[in-house]
Amino acid sequence: MTKLDSNATPRQWRRLIREGGYDAPTSGLCGGFLQCNLVILPRDAADEFEDFCLSNPKPCPLLAKSTTPGDPSLPSLGEGIDVRFDLPRYRHWQAGKVVDELASIEHLWKDNDVAFALGCSFSFDHALGKAGIDVRHVSEGCNVPMYRTSITCEKAGRFWGDMVVSMRPMTSKDAIRAIEISTHYPEAHGAPVHLGDPTLIGINDLKTPDFGSAVSLKTGEIPVFWACGVTPQIVLENAQLPIAFTHAPGHMLITDKTHEDLYEIS
Amino acid sequence: MTKLDSNATPRQWRRLIREGGYDAPTSGLCGGFLQCNLVILPRDAADEFEDFCLSNPKPCPLLAKSTTPGDPSLPSLGEGIDVRFDLPRYRHWQAGKVVDELASIEHLWKDNDVAFALGCSFSFDHALGKAGIDVRHVSEGCNVPMYRTSITCEKAGRFWGDMVVSMRPMTSKDAIRAIEISTHYPEAHGAPVHLGDPTLIGINDLKTPDFGSAVSLKTGEIPVFWACGVTPQIVLENAQLPIAFTHAPGHMLITDKTHEDLYEIS
Repeated sequence: MTKLDSNATPRQWRRLIREGGYDAPTSGLCGGFLQCNLVILPRDAADEFEDFCLSNPKPCPLLAKSTTPGDPSLPSLGEGIDVRFDLPRYRHWQAGKVVDELASIEHLWKDNDVAFALGCSFSFDHALGKAGIDVRHVSEGCNVPMYRTSITCEKAGRFWGDMVVSMRPMTSKDAIRAIEISTHYPEAHGAPVHLGDPTLIGINDLKTPDFGSAVSLKTGEIPVFWACGVTPQIVLENAQLPIAFTHAPGHMLITDKTHEDLYEIS
Repeated sequence: MTKLDSNATPRQWRRLIREGGYDAPTSGLCGGFLQCNLVILPRDAADEFEDFCLSNPKPCPLLAKSTTPGDPSLPSLGEGIDVRFDLPRYRHWQAGKVVDELASIEHLWKDNDVAFALGCSFSFDHALGKAGIDVRHVSEGCNVPMYRTSITCEKAGRFWGDMVVSMRPMTSKDAIRAIEISTHYPEAHGAPVHLGDPTLIGINDLKTPDFGSAVSLKTGEIPVFWACGVTPQIVLENAQLPIAFTHAPGHMLITDKTHEDLYEIS
C-alpha cells in the first residue's frame, strides 16, 4: 500500500495518509522523528485533561495542544498538520466506549474540539536499538506488550485511573543502560516506573498482556516497565465524556520534530 | 579525637589528618567534596596502571596523577595536598600482600613514586541521600558491603583481575532513580554494573560480603551493584609488585573539588 521509501519526510507521510494511501501502524516509519499519541476532547473538558497530563507526565508527556478550540493544526509539531485526517486511524469514543474506528474525523470535528499530542515510546525504542539493545517486540516483529497496573495516576477533575505500562525484557546490564538512555527522553515517557517482580505493580501474568502481544522473556532477563501512552484511553473509559477521539493504538501522528529539536526549543 | 566542626574545609581536615589528629574513616566528612581512592606505585609500573584505569573506568575512574615521579602533590585536586601524609591511614604492599598499615608513608616515599587518585562512591551516596533514597549502609551505620565478582576487568600489562562491587538494596523504584542519578557521576563509578540476581555475577551469598558489612535486604527490594574502588587492591594482589601503597579502606583523600567543579573543568 505504501508508495514512499525510507527517505520520505514526515510531511510526505502525512500527505499519503491524508489521501488515504496508508492505513497501518506507524511504528518504524520516519525513524528519528517524534510520533505522538492524540486525544481530542470538547473544550469544557480540555483544562481538566491538561491538568491530568501535567500531573502525570510519565504516562502523558504533553507535547502540544490546539492553539484555540476548533483549530485542527499543531504548528509547533509540524507545518500543515491537520489532526482531523493526518493519522491513519482514529477511535471514536462515546460515554467511555469505543464506538467506531475511522480513517478521518473531518465530518465529526466541531468548533469546540481541542487536540492534545502526547509523546510516545517509539522515540526511545529507536535510541535503545541504536545502543545495541535487543528491543524484543521489534526483534519479534509484534506490538509491545502492555498491562494495566495498580499504580494510581494523580486525579484531575473527571480524569482518573490506573497507569498502563509497556514491558521490555532485558538482561540487567541492558536494563541499566536502557534506564540511562530513556531518562534523557522525558517526552517519550522517560525512565521506567518499575523493573523486576511484576506482582508488585499488580500484574499477575506477563504472558497475557491487556494490550499488544506477549514477547519471550529469556533466562537471566528481567521485565522492565515504562509508563505507556495507552493510559489516557483507560482514563477516557472512566471519564465517560459524551464524545472524544483518540488515535487507534499504534496509528500515531508523525511530526516534523526530532528529539534534538525539542531540546533546542526548551 | 576530631576537633573540627561540620563547616570545616577540606584543607582544615587535611591539616588535622597531617598532624595526626584524626585516624578514622572519612565517610561523611566534608559533605559535597570529592574523596579519592589512592594508589602509589614505582614509575616503572605507572604507565601500565594508568592503562588499566583508562581501560576500566567504572571501577577505576582516574581523577589525577602525579605531575612528575617523586612529586607528592596533586594540584588539580587541591592546593597543598601531600599524598605522603594527608590520608588518615595507608596500606603498605609488598609482593601482592599488605604488610603494614601506617598513618604516614613519608619515610618510605621514593623519588620514583607516582600517585594515582581514583574517584570513590561517597560522592553519589551523598546525592542518593539528598534524593530521599534510603542508602542502607548509611542508615544502618556500617561500611558498604562489597563482593568479589566474576566480572573480568580489561587486562593491562601486569594489572588484571575480577571486579569488586559494592551493593545497595533498594525498591525497584528507588533503583531506577539511583541509576538516573549515578549515571551523572562517572567520577564516582557511574551507573551500576548489575542489579537483581547476584549469582549472575558470581556472588553466592549476599550475607557474607568479602569486604565491609552485610546490610538488610527488605521484602520487595532488589540488590543493586556498583563497580567499587577496592578493585585496584585485588589487582595489586595479582600484580605482585615489590612495593606499592594505597589508602586503607574507607580512609580516603579529601579533595577541594566538588562534583560541579569537575564538570566545569571538563
